[in-house]
Amino acid sequence: MAVAWHTFISSKPPLYGVSISAKRFTYQLIADSKEFGINFLPFEAAELVASVGGSKGSEIDKFQRFNIAQSKPVRTAVPILEAAYAAYECRLADDRGYGDHRWLVGEIVAVHWLKEVFTPDEVIDWAKVSPILYLGNELYITTSKDTIRSLDRKVYGRG
Amino acid sequence: MAVAWHTFISSKPPLYGVSISAKRFTYQLIADSKEFGINFLPFEAAELVASVGGSKGSEIDKFQRFNIAQSKPVRTAVPILEAAYAAYECRLADDRGYGDHRWLVGEIVAVHWLKEVFTPDEVIDWAKVSPILYLGNELYITTSKDTIRSLDRKVYGRG
Repeated sequence: MAVAWHTFISSKPPLYGVSISAKRFTYQLIADSKEFGINFLPFEAAELVASVGGSKGSEIDKFQRFNIAQSKPVRTAVPILEAAYAAYECRLADDRGYGDHRWLVGEIVAVHWLKEVFTPDEVIDWAKVSPILYLGNELYITTSKDTIRSLDRKVYGRG
Repeated sequence: MAVAWHTFISSKPPLYGVSISAKRFTYQLIADSKEFGINFLPFEAAELVASVGGSKGSEIDKFQRFNIAQSKPVRTAVPILEAAYAAYECRLADDRGYGDHRWLVGEIVAVHWLKEVFTPDEVIDWAKVSPILYLGNELYITTSKDTIRSLDRKVYGRG
């Protein structure tokens, strides 16, 4: 599925949270398997994101229909997408209701990344990858590489 | 404070979640007052974000030091920043530990927005505002307006 609401929530241990509706087919898959994958896709995959977000896993096999290539997971059985510039394998650590959504927290137990878009010290090089950002209302945007600014908080924090 | 980890988590009721360390001065303020504000700033305010992120409220009055103009909150006593293109007033609905951070969930009880950057039907016009996006490692970026794409998920979902 395509998810709009998600964030890191802890460094040690590395925890990632995703907010999804219990009505989604994906929710049942995660509740049953106790694991899930997080795939970060480039802007070039916008059509794939819209396709996955606009179809139901209870009705079709999305991998087959949209011809989605997978990489092998290493510590779980979750789907890792070849098109992702980074992906996490997560073991479900919490599943909690907040309002009309479920809050699923996963411990990241394996990380996949596209070496070409990372620096030698394993930091993502945002000049080399354009992330897909969802704006709501079926709108997608990406970052503007020529706007990257480095602002040392220690310097600015002095005022 | 400047926060990197946050997301919407429910529509009805409208809930917003923020992950912060219990070591932060802001955490104590929220735990005591049971309310917090979320301010979305434009890329032009990058220096302000770095300044606020690199200083401690236990040591200085950030509003005074960084000359931060405030708007009046309407249903709480939280700080609303004039520089924000959108802001929420939240009442604390949950405060929970996940790993090395606290997960603070707030119910949005009031919304502030800069009319000039919203369409008549109250949707944000991303051609008119450049959000500040934090990449980690003291790096900031914004969106590229000329990349906005509208992809109807119902069309793409058919495959």
